[in-house]
Amino acid sequence: MTPETERLVSLRREFHRRPEPAWREFWTTARIVEELDAIGVDDLFVGPDVLDAEARMGTPDADDLEAWIDHAREAGASDDLLDRLAGGTTGAIAVLDGEDPEGGPTIALRVDIDGLPRAESDAGDHVPAAEGFRSENDGAMHACGHDAHATIGIGVIEALKERGFTGQLKVLFQPAEEVVGGAAPMAESGHIDDVDYLLAVHIGLDHPTGEVVAGIEGFLAVSHFRAEFAGEPSHAGGHPAQGRNAVQAMAAAVQNLYAIPRHEAGATRVNAGDVGGGTAANIVPEDAYIEGEVRGETTALMEYMREKADRVLRNAAEMHDCSVEIETKGEAPSATNDAALVDLVEAVAGTTDGVESVLRHDDLGGSEDATYLMRHVQEQGGKAAYVCVGTDHPGGHHTATFDVDEASLPIGVSVLADAIRQVGEHRP
Amino acid sequence: MTPETERLVSLRREFHRRPEPAWREFWTTARIVEELDAIGVDDLFVGPDVLDAEARMGTPDADDLEAWIDHAREAGASDDLLDRLAGGTTGAIAVLDGEDPEGGPTIALRVDIDGLPRAESDAGDHVPAAEGFRSENDGAMHACGHDAHATIGIGVIEALKERGFTGQLKVLFQPAEEVVGGAAPMAESGHIDDVDYLLAVHIGLDHPTGEVVAGIEGFLAVSHFRAEFAGEPSHAGGHPAQGRNAVQAMAAAVQNLYAIPRHEAGATRVNAGDVGGGTAANIVPEDAYIEGEVRGETTALMEYMREKADRVLRNAAEMHDCSVEIETKGEAPSATNDAALVDLVEAVAGTTDGVESVLRHDDLGGSEDATYLMRHVQEQGGKAAYVCVGTDHPGGHHTATFDVDEASLPIGVSVLADAIRQVGEHRP
Amino acid sequence: MTPETERLVSLRREFHRRPEPAWREFWTTARIVEELDAIGVDDLFVGPDVLDAEARMGTPDADDLEAWIDHAREAGASDDLLDRLAGGTTGAIAVLDGEDPEGGPTIALRVDIDGLPRAESDAGDHVPAAEGFRSENDGAMHACGHDAHATIGIGVIEALKERGFTGQLKVLFQPAEEVVGGAAPMAESGHIDDVDYLLAVHIGLDHPTGEVVAGIEGFLAVSHFRAEFAGEPSHAGGHPAQGRNAVQAMAAAVQNLYAIPRHEAGATRVNAGDVGGGTAANIVPEDAYIEGEVRGETTALMEYMREKADRVLRNAAEMHDCSVEIETKGEAPSATNDAALVDLVEAVAGTTDGVESVLRHDDLGGSEDATYLMRHVQEQGGKAAYVCVGTDHPGGHHTATFDVDEASLPIGVSVLADAIRQVGEHRP
Amino acid sequence: MTPETERLVSLRREFHRRPEPAWREFWTTARIVEELDAIGVDDLFVGPDVLDAEARMGTPDADDLEAWIDHAREAGASDDLLDRLAGGTTGAIAVLDGEDPEGGPTIALRVDIDGLPRAESDAGDHVPAAEGFRSENDGAMHACGHDAHATIGIGVIEALKERGFTGQLKVLFQPAEEVVGGAAPMAESGHIDDVDYLLAVHIGLDHPTGEVVAGIEGFLAVSHFRAEFAGEPSHAGGHPAQGRNAVQAMAAAVQNLYAIPRHEAGATRVNAGDVGGGTAANIVPEDAYIEGEVRGETTALMEYMREKADRVLRNAAEMHDCSVEIETKGEAPSATNDAALVDLVEAVAGTTDGVESVLRHDDLGGSEDATYLMRHVQEQGGKAAYVCVGTDHPGGHHTATFDVDEASLPIGVSVLADAIRQVGEHRP
Repeated sequence: MTPETERLVSLRREFHRRPEPAWREFWTTARIVEELDAIGVDDLFVGPDVLDAEARMGTPDADDLEAWIDHAREAGASDDLLDRLAGGTTGAIAVLDGEDPEGGPTIALRVDIDGLPRAESDAGDHVPAAEGFRSENDGAMHACGHDAHATIGIGVIEALKERGFTGQLKVLFQPAEEVVGGAAPMAESGHIDDVDYLLAVHIGLDHPTGEVVAGIEGFLAVSHFRAEFAGEPSHAGGHPAQGRNAVQAMAAAVQNLYAIPRHEAGATRVNAGDVGGGTAANIVPEDAYIEGEVRGETTALMEYMREKADRVLRNAAEMHDCSVEIETKGEAPSATNDAALVDLVEAVAGTTDGVESVLRHDDLGGSEDATYLMRHVQEQGGKAAYVCVGTDHPGGHHTATFDVDEASLPIGVSVLADAIRQVGEHRP
Repeated sequence: MTPETERLVSLRREFHRRPEPAWREFWTTARIVEELDAIGVDDLFVGPDVLDAEARMGTPDADDLEAWIDHAREAGASDDLLDRLAGGTTGAIAVLDGEDPEGGPTIALRVDIDGLPRAESDAGDHVPAAEGFRSENDGAMHACGHDAHATIGIGVIEALKERGFTGQLKVLFQPAEEVVGGAAPMAESGHIDDVDYLLAVHIGLDHPTGEVVAGIEGFLAVSHFRAEFAGEPSHAGGHPAQGRNAVQAMAAAVQNLYAIPRHEAGATRVNAGDVGGGTAANIVPEDAYIEGEVRGETTALMEYMREKADRVLRNAAEMHDCSVEIETKGEAPSATNDAALVDLVEAVAGTTDGVESVLRHDDLGGSEDATYLMRHVQEQGGKAAYVCVGTDHPGGHHTATFDVDEASLPIGVSVLADAIRQVGEHRP
Repeated sequence: MTPETERLVSLRREFHRRPEPAWREFWTTARIVEELDAIGVDDLFVGPDVLDAEARMGTPDADDLEAWIDHAREAGASDDLLDRLAGGTTGAIAVLDGEDPEGGPTIALRVDIDGLPRAESDAGDHVPAAEGFRSENDGAMHACGHDAHATIGIGVIEALKERGFTGQLKVLFQPAEEVVGGAAPMAESGHIDDVDYLLAVHIGLDHPTGEVVAGIEGFLAVSHFRAEFAGEPSHAGGHPAQGRNAVQAMAAAVQNLYAIPRHEAGATRVNAGDVGGGTAANIVPEDAYIEGEVRGETTALMEYMREKADRVLRNAAEMHDCSVEIETKGEAPSATNDAALVDLVEAVAGTTDGVESVLRHDDLGGSEDATYLMRHVQEQGGKAAYVCVGTDHPGGHHTATFDVDEASLPIGVSVLADAIRQVGEHRP
Repeated sequence: MTPETERLVSLRREFHRRPEPAWREFWTTARIVEELDAIGVDDLFVGPDVLDAEARMGTPDADDLEAWIDHAREAGASDDLLDRLAGGTTGAIAVLDGEDPEGGPTIALRVDIDGLPRAESDAGDHVPAAEGFRSENDGAMHACGHDAHATIGIGVIEALKERGFTGQLKVLFQPAEEVVGGAAPMAESGHIDDVDYLLAVHIGLDHPTGEVVAGIEGFLAVSHFRAEFAGEPSHAGGHPAQGRNAVQAMAAAVQNLYAIPRHEAGATRVNAGDVGGGTAANIVPEDAYIEGEVRGETTALMEYMREKADRVLRNAAEMHDCSVEIETKGEAPSATNDAALVDLVEAVAGTTDGVESVLRHDDLGGSEDATYLMRHVQEQGGKAAYVCVGTDHPGGHHTATFDVDEASLPIGVSVLADAIRQVGEHRP
């Protein structure tokens, strides 16, 4: 293992050990800042300076945030930095100037940094458990490889600082991807208004170590919602007609949500993924909720589903004399890659050490809020591509045994750093 | 306040301060035993000796029981007694011999002793909070007056020991009424096989202090069930057709449970009172549950509902390619009072100090597992009646502000002790 | 067979041969008028003079009425009379004065006269088929004994004219009972405002020939509705999202109608008895309907159900972006008998020739719009009872093989005529 | 207008005047045979000789067939031919030998000949009404252009007989396309086992006169089903619990059919297009039905939907204690064109008189049972293409005002005859 690889592995394990779910990436942000300070960058923004706070969605409540801030403090984050993030704004943007930073292209690299609210496996054959870097934050886990993403972001800065490039590089350390909540406020922050090229990266996605996909397509636009139904309780034996049954409302909604008509214009999705209601067998349920989502192959199809879902939710409530409040908790549009940028990545990957197979396209079939950033750049005349760096992963994404093959870390750094150098030179 | 009343009040407040939900009445049983030992009874059985353990329903798991045993130990229950109750069998039966215990009638008095799994109000105008005997067990509360019932049971023994009576008295300190789970195993224990007369008592039920109802009717037979649906998760965006959706199964079941046809033979009830399912908005839900109940004006009507509910639950699961496990968590038949015993109680109450109004009958419109004991006694040729002792209660039964008017405690003791003396003498 | 009985049988068979469904009793009314003219009564009102036309419900359209009027004309009804009924107002009220018509009580007898829209059996063992008086009106049948009722009404007038009585008798030949539509407009006509006693009669009801029930109870209040859902069609393969699916709306309504909560105050009913929608397998359905009913043990309970049903129907439509029109097609309140009048009928029946068994009460468990008349009389201080005259009937009411035992006709005439004489004399 | 065009127009109007729905094309088959006999073909098969009778689906009952046979006889079809078709097997296959019929390729042209069970407009601006060739068969109409298809089939034979071609031509005059029922038995008849090239043709499809689409794609595989639910009736007021409610079963099925999960592998469809149940508002419904369909972008996706639909239907019935019978009424797989054949048609169309615009592909978004024939040919090594000949049509397909622009008839004949000549010569 080269010293560079050793450093990447060590950094990734550090992140892996301290996963922080969406909007709680206090220690993670602090650790990134610390590292970047050590490397030396030309500009560095954090927290409230990298987000339009109004545009955030799915943020936790104050108690929740406070607990994670305390946790970060105990883990070594500086009081100074924590004070700046305290309102619940996390993430960072690092700026590195290459040659001709004014005249050359502005190139952004987006890496996301949040963990997931799920427990990590402690099985003996789960490498993080076996080698002692399993999550120390109970109930949280880097189960989607964002620990590797943060590491690759730092690695690219280090590599380009050493090897040089043309133009200006902005690395976006984005919070809250898992709730499709962090990209929109970063897109609205002003920092990417001048970006000419945006690369986003994801590791794994069922592609093995040594494989690179130049342009991931098939992003479904998504809207994640929470509906809270409120009725009135009564004793189910003595006063069954005195209640207003929120569980009946919820069940009617579930049945009719899944029954929203398919659309001839393309794929749609709907899921009532987390539901509940009521208090006891003998009480007519006074409250219920659905946490769910709708998706569409295009943003318009997602909006078709959202409008229909709203109609179902409101009338299911009203049908059972209940009220309902519907909150949008996260949202992302669909997006597509620019062919010229995909061409370039495809060519670069084909000559990168360690890369054995290059695919031009593959479909995600899921959602990603990087699409907000991609569209923002494209709407202003820039180009964007979403690159996948393969990694052998024993468990699927989001499962308790997910892990990355650390051999893919230097491959990711090389492909992206080379691609950025080529973009600077050739402006595709 | 007489010394007797003072003692009843003090005892009731002690029970109130330490509510223990169904099957966890470790400290409560210990405290009753301690008190009865002090009074002196002719026989005293506890825990495994008062229940047919096989007939229990709705019992908690081992960890849960262990925690409450520890709690009881800290609160002063003796290790000795706790050892005897350890398997999760609570409750006690006290035997008091009057004159001619062999030749005279065997008379049982049933009082239930469990609390509810709900938090108690800490409002300033809630008397237990204001006077310092609010629940010390977080999340548990005597919100249905069983603290008063246990107290009355002890008070009756004390009164009859002093005043004498004919025959033999068995006071049944029954656990787990709130989950309709404790009466069946006590009925099957053998202890009431020789009972000629059974009186059960409840306080309140919307009747004011000074009012007595000689025979509560309108018990709905009930069956409390839990259905667990199991499917298979998948990513709702990428693989919507690979899951087997347990929430769809649950919602279809809820809709069709409430739609079970009404029955021409009398009142029926159904409720899906506590439901839930799934894990996250973007995962096809792999599990779901319904905790619910069916009731009927007669046991046959309840069984009609149960059979229909089973059919709905099984086919809702199968419809969505899920499995379902249905567990009966509690059950009680319907029952009626014996007129001769009601006559006697009505007459006695009419001459009891403090009683201002006597009703012959009123309808419960709910369920009570005392019906198991009533029917057991009746099936063997005995007679039973269910007596209500009114008490002003500011909040409704099962609410956070429920409380009893302690002036009703001595009234309850008098009515019941007098009734037992009259039964012994006149064998109605 | 006495000549009186022969005459009753012949008259009943004539009615049986020409059944006319609700609001189409043109020939039937004409035939009754003809008969009463022959007998001679003191006053005779028909059609528009016996109904408040505004209060009618469930009336057929003009073409339908015209066809039945033509039919009645061909069957011998006079043009003169048909002209008076033409607006679709059928039925008659005959007034017969006894002794002291001003000073004595006003007594009403209600008989209904409409047939049912169903085909009659032509089986060899169906007496009307075997003996040649099967329905000549295809698709219509006297399958509920109203042919016998009309006959008994005429028979009672004839008997009392001969035997005399005290007071004044009004016989109400009421149309449109089967759609619970004729009683309300007759109650509002003014004719029964001065009625002191009302007897209504029904034959059969599963009671054998020779049995009389003095007071039928258990009338469920009912409201019969039709809901028409309107959406928009589209090709189910090519444009599934362009339609607005009325069948989805209807199905959601059906599921939730049956799931309206049971009511603690008494029995309720709901039924979606006739539903349909759509045009072809490959077209998103643009229309659908539910013809259904709600009932309640009391009028208030029926109204509870109706309000809930309306809520369900409207929101099911709205949920699927459809509209719905809800029409009340018929309606009747609940009602109870006056004990004093039941006492009298019970006593009279006990001494009537041919009566072998007298029941004081039995429950209908269904609905009847006679309740409108009963309540109207009671609200003005009068008394009412609903009498059942048993008759052996091979098929059930409303089935193709229903028939009456004609031996019950003179029994019915005797019981009612005697009861009216007793009422006149004793004013119970 | 040339004499050839005049003849095509006259023939098409004759067919238009006598539309016969699926499996009832008695007169149509007879007329085609008559015409082919006049032209002279090398072989001609009809009815039972062109179908595997066992493979038919969606066939009418005997009375229905008899009525249409009588009708055809009155319209001039010969008794002889009608005798051969009598079992309900319609359609014909004509064989025309070109040069080298043994050594050259066998080329099939498929035209469908059935009408639709819907009334035709009699509006003054509907050309068939204005010019006197509106449907004379009440309730039936050529509303999808199959009259033009039959005409084009005859026209192509006539043209090729005159102009010559290489190989052998089989023109398949296929019955019962509208119920996706006629192609499967023709595919199984043996007649196309030796076919090397298959062209199918459709007119219109929203393409204007002068436009040709060389290869229609986007056929959805389809399965059309009928589910009959059987329960038990009871009086909804008196005996609500004695029935077994088929409408509840149907409604539960409808709700859950539409809620079958979307599939990640491609488009699916489901529709409950024609439903009904019950008899009267006051009867618990004893029967109900759903006539519906499922579709999929591939045959596998359609089968996924069908398996799920079956599961829903069976469990919805069982849930309400009803039985269900599910019958497949029609079915067609998906299919794709062979590029080489599309290339040829595209090239030919580009040089045909009257063709102004040639599209290579367009999506049908619906279903067609020609796919059975296409797949049968392809499975045996042959090639297939589905050609659309544009025609201005005022009303949409299947509507009362559908009509074709007769100027498209000679274009269709030319394109297809030229294509067949080119295929014979070049064997693409």
